[in-house]
Amino acid sequence: MEITYPVQQLKDLSLAIFKKIGCPGHEAEKATEVLLSADLRGIDSHGLARLSGYVRLWEAQRINSTPNVRIVHESPSTAVVDGDRGLGLVVAPQAMQIAIDKAKTCGTGWVGVKNSNHFGIAGFHAMMALQHDMIGMAMTNASPLVAPTFSVERLLGTNPICVAIPADKQPPFVADFATTTAANGKLEILQRKNKEAPEGWIQKKDGSVSTNPHELKDGGALIPLGSDREHGSHKGFCLGAWVDIFSAVLSGANYGPWVPPFVSFLAPPADPVGEGIGHFFGAMRVDAFRPTHEFKSHMDNWITRFRSAKTIEGQEKLIIPGDPERESELERLKNGIPLNDKVVDDLKDLARKIGVAF
Amino acid sequence: MEITYPVQQLKDLSLAIFKKIGCPGHEAEKATEVLLSADLRGIDSHGLARLSGYVRLWEAQRINSTPNVRIVHESPSTAVVDGDRGLGLVVAPQAMQIAIDKAKTCGTGWVGVKNSNHFGIAGFHAMMALQHDMIGMAMTNASPLVAPTFSVERLLGTNPICVAIPADKQPPFVADFATTTAANGKLEILQRKNKEAPEGWIQKKDGSVSTNPHELKDGGALIPLGSDREHGSHKGFCLGAWVDIFSAVLSGANYGPWVPPFVSFLAPPADPVGEGIGHFFGAMRVDAFRPTHEFKSHMDNWITRFRSAKTIEGQEKLIIPGDPERESELERLKNGIPLNDKVVDDLKDLARKIGVAF
Repeated sequence: MEITYPVQQLKDLSLAIFKKIGCPGHEAEKATEVLLSADLRGIDSHGLARLSGYVRLWEAQRINSTPNVRIVHESPSTAVVDGDRGLGLVVAPQAMQIAIDKAKTCGTGWVGVKNSNHFGIAGFHAMMALQHDMIGMAMTNASPLVAPTFSVERLLGTNPICVAIPADKQPPFVADFATTTAANGKLEILQRKNKEAPEGWIQKKDGSVSTNPHELKDGGALIPLGSDREHGSHKGFCLGAWVDIFSAVLSGANYGPWVPPFVSFLAPPADPVGEGIGHFFGAMRVDAFRPTHEFKSHMDNWITRFRSAKTIEGQEKLIIPGDPERESELERLKNGIPLNDKVVDDLKDLARKIGVAF
Repeated sequence: MEITYPVQQLKDLSLAIFKKIGCPGHEAEKATEVLLSADLRGIDSHGLARLSGYVRLWEAQRINSTPNVRIVHESPSTAVVDGDRGLGLVVAPQAMQIAIDKAKTCGTGWVGVKNSNHFGIAGFHAMMALQHDMIGMAMTNASPLVAPTFSVERLLGTNPICVAIPADKQPPFVADFATTTAANGKLEILQRKNKEAPEGWIQKKDGSVSTNPHELKDGGALIPLGSDREHGSHKGFCLGAWVDIFSAVLSGANYGPWVPPFVSFLAPPADPVGEGIGHFFGAMRVDAFRPTHEFKSHMDNWITRFRSAKTIEGQEKLIIPGDPERESELERLKNGIPLNDKVVDDLKDLARKIGVAF
């Protein structure tokens, strides 16, 4: 069952809770903005559904609500940022802003982040570049849930990538996707509904095929994009590995199986290879390559041509990356955000525990 | 049937042919080096098998053997290069060198290329960064053979990406892959052997599933990585689109369905939206992020941990990206390069026609 809430009511709740755990006002507001952007864009797994998780990590002293986010290494076009164990929701926009500032003077800016936590949806951060007529990129590693091709061990997170590219009259191109066949959020939906997963999403503890969405609890794993070797899962592994190395080996965060779990009831590995989890951000000024109006007009042409392609029977049009999320945002800004009743119960418990109204 | 040739004999042939079509000595040598690197690394579809195709494009006056490759736009960390209709095999290493030079002063360098042709394997160019303790990236768009999710039209090429990352005692991490379920080269192998393709590699003219490797001749298409919507083909589409936009919309090359075909018997579209095909290169100095020895030692740890992961039954170890290609290179440097007899016949015809010994 779902209950739909006005956006403002959920904003107020999130803001009050981030303030209660000690976030300074403007950081509580930024964290709320990032979190709500996930619910608005239809990526329900990364929005308010995670709020109690962040609070539990703060209770376990694994999140610092007053971080001193700072550059610890830099060159004209790069920086590494120490997130000081802050909320990724707060650290990531600051790091992306540094990438944007570097791009202003240098053409492009590239920022690795260590010592951070879960940063919400990659899309929020990458899209910050758009208003500056820049291309934005964001990636992050995450708790190990994914078995590379031929592995029974979970060694990678769902490690998403977002690339956001501005257009002129057309809406921007925003590709934001987990590097697995299916995002963990899609699995959670099947778990709640007690439905089977398609073959190729998950594997059992021994690496054999499974359609049980609860398999991860029994030592199973998510599968890299491609589903199996014959269909290119080694390429999905390449993608997830790339995100892991850029996000963490480059910045000094934990990588691979050493990435600390998001859930507070699992302790981080006792032998860390870095600090916290890692992210990677990029900003490229369009006019560092060609005049902005030329680029944007060709992006309009690209999008229009692809959107109007001849489709297979039963499909009206091609989906341009970013279309579904933008449609969701327009609809939910107007009609409110539907929350699963388990999420609602969780938020009510949280509000009661922490002493805010909901 | 296959015939194995000593590497030197094939090098001599390639060099003689590139010189015959007018390439200056050092450019003929570079083109040969790039082409042979594909055969050595086991990516047979991108090596000598393509030599006669390049010559036919030169005959059709679509390849300029004495290009004036030059920067037409730049910022401290970026450049756009006009390839002057040169061989991609010659243009790409020059553009990658510019990215490396930019990275030396700026931390990173990013170069878009327009007005180029097929550049061989992405891996060659990206790997140029390794000797400078840099991370290298290379991507290119290509003739439209791929139908995005829900499309019956072929709108994208197999658009490969390569990311090459240096390690210390371990060999480098080199992920080099087409953004489709299967590379076109794999399909060509099935065509030659008259074998069926797995479901999820190709679709028929109307978008329905096919296992006929000859389907492309009848208006069918390759499928983006993911195989179908349920298994994430929209993510493979995102990847191919990303490569297309970075390679061509950013540089001023042709994109999407406007990319000129590799085969000389098909004319380029009459209404081009840019010049030639496009590439995109990146170089990031490791020490623009953290001390090189630290990074490389953690890369060793990353690679060692993944390589030694517990595997599914029947598999000895995980494949680290770059392993198979490196093993092929060692073996073929020693024992020679096996060529399919159809490729041999094609090379013999070419040598006879152009007047060189083989």
